[in-house]
Amino acid sequence: MTQKYGAGIWHFATYVDRYATDGYGPPRTLVEMIDLAGQVDDLSVVDINYPFPGGGVSADEVEVALKRNGLSVIGITPEIYTREFAKGAFTNPDAGVRRRANELVTEAADVVRRFGADYVKLWPGQDGWDYPFQVDHGVLWKHSIDGVGELAAANPDLKFVIEYKPREPRVHMSYDSVARTLLGIEKIGLPNVGILLDFGHSLYGGESPADAAQLAIDHGRLFGMDVNDNMRGWDDDLMAGSVHPIELFEFFYTLRRNGWEGVWQLDQFPFREDSIATANGAISFLKGIERALDKLDVEAMRAAQARHDAVEALRLAREALFTSF
Amino acid sequence: MTQKYGAGIWHFATYVDRYATDGYGPPRTLVEMIDLAGQVDDLSVVDINYPFPGGGVSADEVEVALKRNGLSVIGITPEIYTREFAKGAFTNPDAGVRRRANELVTEAADVVRRFGADYVKLWPGQDGWDYPFQVDHGVLWKHSIDGVGELAAANPDLKFVIEYKPREPRVHMSYDSVARTLLGIEKIGLPNVGILLDFGHSLYGGESPADAAQLAIDHGRLFGMDVNDNMRGWDDDLMAGSVHPIELFEFFYTLRRNGWEGVWQLDQFPFREDSIATANGAISFLKGIERALDKLDVEAMRAAQARHDAVEALRLAREALFTSF
Amino acid sequence: MTQKYGAGIWHFATYVDRYATDGYGPPRTLVEMIDLAGQVDDLSVVDINYPFPGGGVSADEVEVALKRNGLSVIGITPEIYTREFAKGAFTNPDAGVRRRANELVTEAADVVRRFGADYVKLWPGQDGWDYPFQVDHGVLWKHSIDGVGELAAANPDLKFVIEYKPREPRVHMSYDSVARTLLGIEKIGLPNVGILLDFGHSLYGGESPADAAQLAIDHGRLFGMDVNDNMRGWDDDLMAGSVHPIELFEFFYTLRRNGWEGVWQLDQFPFREDSIATANGAISFLKGIERALDKLDVEAMRAAQARHDAVEALRLAREALFTSF
Amino acid sequence: MTQKYGAGIWHFATYVDRYATDGYGPPRTLVEMIDLAGQVDDLSVVDINYPFPGGGVSADEVEVALKRNGLSVIGITPEIYTREFAKGAFTNPDAGVRRRANELVTEAADVVRRFGADYVKLWPGQDGWDYPFQVDHGVLWKHSIDGVGELAAANPDLKFVIEYKPREPRVHMSYDSVARTLLGIEKIGLPNVGILLDFGHSLYGGESPADAAQLAIDHGRLFGMDVNDNMRGWDDDLMAGSVHPIELFEFFYTLRRNGWEGVWQLDQFPFREDSIATANGAISFLKGIERALDKLDVEAMRAAQARHDAVEALRLAREALFTSF
Repeated sequence: MTQKYGAGIWHFATYVDRYATDGYGPPRTLVEMIDLAGQVDDLSVVDINYPFPGGGVSADEVEVALKRNGLSVIGITPEIYTREFAKGAFTNPDAGVRRRANELVTEAADVVRRFGADYVKLWPGQDGWDYPFQVDHGVLWKHSIDGVGELAAANPDLKFVIEYKPREPRVHMSYDSVARTLLGIEKIGLPNVGILLDFGHSLYGGESPADAAQLAIDHGRLFGMDVNDNMRGWDDDLMAGSVHPIELFEFFYTLRRNGWEGVWQLDQFPFREDSIATANGAISFLKGIERALDKLDVEAMRAAQARHDAVEALRLAREALFTSF
Repeated sequence: MTQKYGAGIWHFATYVDRYATDGYGPPRTLVEMIDLAGQVDDLSVVDINYPFPGGGVSADEVEVALKRNGLSVIGITPEIYTREFAKGAFTNPDAGVRRRANELVTEAADVVRRFGADYVKLWPGQDGWDYPFQVDHGVLWKHSIDGVGELAAANPDLKFVIEYKPREPRVHMSYDSVARTLLGIEKIGLPNVGILLDFGHSLYGGESPADAAQLAIDHGRLFGMDVNDNMRGWDDDLMAGSVHPIELFEFFYTLRRNGWEGVWQLDQFPFREDSIATANGAISFLKGIERALDKLDVEAMRAAQARHDAVEALRLAREALFTSF
Repeated sequence: MTQKYGAGIWHFATYVDRYATDGYGPPRTLVEMIDLAGQVDDLSVVDINYPFPGGGVSADEVEVALKRNGLSVIGITPEIYTREFAKGAFTNPDAGVRRRANELVTEAADVVRRFGADYVKLWPGQDGWDYPFQVDHGVLWKHSIDGVGELAAANPDLKFVIEYKPREPRVHMSYDSVARTLLGIEKIGLPNVGILLDFGHSLYGGESPADAAQLAIDHGRLFGMDVNDNMRGWDDDLMAGSVHPIELFEFFYTLRRNGWEGVWQLDQFPFREDSIATANGAISFLKGIERALDKLDVEAMRAAQARHDAVEALRLAREALFTSF
Repeated sequence: MTQKYGAGIWHFATYVDRYATDGYGPPRTLVEMIDLAGQVDDLSVVDINYPFPGGGVSADEVEVALKRNGLSVIGITPEIYTREFAKGAFTNPDAGVRRRANELVTEAADVVRRFGADYVKLWPGQDGWDYPFQVDHGVLWKHSIDGVGELAAANPDLKFVIEYKPREPRVHMSYDSVARTLLGIEKIGLPNVGILLDFGHSLYGGESPADAAQLAIDHGRLFGMDVNDNMRGWDDDLMAGSVHPIELFEFFYTLRRNGWEGVWQLDQFPFREDSIATANGAISFLKGIERALDKLDVEAMRAAQARHDAVEALRLAREALFTSF
């Protein structure tokens, strides 16, 4: 099997933040982003925001652009984190806004069907709190669960994936960790809700991404994943492998050991870098990881892990990883 | 109802660490610790390590010392984190050590019965990992769950509480957060396993302790709690209220809102401070919190929280807290 | 003396971030921001970005708006962190951009003179790096120092204040801490370069803000300061006093002990809150701190600190702070 | 030139912490530690604590053991962090204890002379504070500087190196960062005081170790260094290269670029691992780094850094590092 690679289409956008309010580059249309994605050496699928970024483009036009670039759609990410949802989508104090979030995701579900994509991706970045005493935590969590549960129940033909994250833009997000998200998913109790595990979110949340992946797999809920890197204190969305190559290798080792065979996606934000070069840089490293996984002495690794022998386990990991480039 | 206060008996010990290997003070016997605890202004219960620290003391002698000081036992903490268990108690790679952990906790269960205490406290500080690739995460988590489950099944007359913690002494502990621990407890599926929520562990794990308490309560698993403070990066076990008084107040507000009526315990490590003064300092602050809870305009708080109005909620909190001393 | 209060004018702006690209509210003109600032109960001075936010407004119009609201200008903050400077202002790899940064700050210096303000504020948020191996650290630091030094030498009639910050938007900023900034200032060797100490930057950089203030004062370089709050992991710019009231009190205690008598400024970002209410909430807390400073038993505090007696020092601090509201 | 390797002799000790009070293994004598160090494949020098750990051994006996193992002494580390110094060595509130610290370091200076070692290593781990309001920061810092300055002035024939660290065992250490330490050293103003840069301390203090090294070198103060690894939140003292190989490579690249030619030392704490295997594992990785440094295309790297081109710089770094094993 050839490993498939994917990326969030925002990898090829330009960005604003609270300081560079004029953006790190001129705005790009969705079609321009797709044409950039098409120039990456080995990219098969993309995850696309909805409403389509920039606006003024139809699904048919998007499809043409995708075909032209040999890309298909893996997921649709409804933008439930813009101004309207600044105080929350599923957990907004205003029931009207919560309903509007439901409507937007429902529209996104139709786009998933339209493109034959795998899932609706839910990243409820504004659902949470900033201050002590700001919210009733019991109500907030109930809304977090109910919001996703209603959508999953209403769309049993589709998969919904929750991309948890510790924080940003909220000071604390309600779906903040793998365990909390699994706890919520178990409460929802539907088969079509799972996790999209972002390596960087896991890392800066203090998890071992490999452990998080194993836990999600053991609950039958690892529906997707993406990678990047950071300094363990924030969602820097740096190029995958640039800072923590060994834990990245352990993450993919865990996926392979469990026979998990989904797409390897990128979720990087090249604020100041060339987006094609950054994607190629990451994928080139991931291909090295593929080779290292083929080369790794799995039996010896399992034996070392059975003894909790870190020195030997790391020797084996290095022997494979540092000779595959 | 008069609020009851308690403390881990180690609050009155002296300590060693990897640098001050000669200890921050001369060793104390358990009886000496109990006699110090008895001098704190308002302390009713203690949590005692097992085997009894220092050794050479019988349960009867402990009971005499407790009576002399007007103290009773709330919990027993088996020392499943000493040399023998350096590579884990429930998750040790050696099945013989895992069995020995079970035996030690089983002995501790008898001590709980002997003293009519509330629970066996499990703090599996050596269960986890230090390095990438060191363990098979699926196996490790299974052992974490099975170890506790077997004990709870074998002792249905007793409560077992798990005190989760992100790390230390292991670089990563398997019971690392409220959500992960609840996930494990749900898997165990027995009514007599719950959580002891340490305010500081929650805080430095990136949780909101109030949110963690609410979640544990909503799962019917908040069996105990203790407080202290830290700088959000490590388990400093500082005096409660010394750094984060507002989140401490929110934590107790959450308990009261839910009608949770257990003991307010201290888990402080006064390495360089007088242990009695540190306990009195903390309890004196907690009594201020009690008064503030009585004074707080709960209806206005609930209204502010229903709007997610942080500025007003904090104004109400301050109005109560900063006028109760 | 009556304590004067100030704020960065951006406190009254609306914000964008990389997710809510449509902003947390409709854009505001500088004049609208000034009119909001004027509604705060007790605000005397503001720090204004240059070029004036929104554009299309003259210095005379700004002056009219300020007068109308009883405000004067304490500092001017040139925007050396927008798109043009995305790879750095003083440290940009392109000498032409470094020159453009110099020109922009030089223009800002004239605006300082025009308004009779106290200082040019330098916040070089894009000066630093994101990745390992990205820069030659010796060159980068030299550029950081030279860029400020040239401006200070060319404008000896004005003060330049550097607002250091650990990170954001760069993954690592070159002026990242009080000590590093003082080291650079000593190297520059001019009397008109100092520090603007942001309480929150210090806190999330792992400093004690009180210690940072003392160090800057002891070097004769504390030229300004502002306050806010956060969770110690990021520059959340929350309402001052909302999370860390005790360290905030210690910070102001240190200023008073040293006879430092500047303006108490706010640097808050009320993304989702009413900006006037957030400013009033903070200032109301700071006025409580003023009262607490008057009430504090300074002799007893000095005696406790001479013994490093934390329990007693905190008792004294609480006795003053928690009874001043 | 053949690269020399060294280690703190405590690498070969066993450890206690506040939980495993019976230690992670049976105590070892200094001679036993030296005999273990001698079994490491390529170790030339050691840093030895003073008083000699375990006691009851003379300098002559130590010398015999060292010779037997082909080892010499690079530095002596006086134990200014044991019980007596729990509230500080140089900054202790008790002048008598401060004097005793001076005496102990003075004795250690004689041991340096006795062994022809390079330096007295000062690691003032108990000098700092735990709580807000605990200390007068101006006094504390003055004592930190004076304590070192007096020793350096009294022993002009010897070098004194300060090993800074953000925290542990104190919640905050006074010599907490490279910049703070350099600021203090400049204040002391003597040529024989420098920095021993611990890679892990720098990393978990939020520094870039490569940048810290460059800064110390540019001030002419990088007198020594050691390496290990951690999770960026604590001084885990893990095996070098196990988590952050790329930043470790950048660190050594910076040393070579500056022609810094000292010993590459280990400061690891193998709590649960075999100490010889852990040392060999680290040195084997460091030898790979040596080869990678020989292979790296330095001109291309400098050109990429001149453009701040992270993608290309990292490609070059990987091309060298991931092919040298």
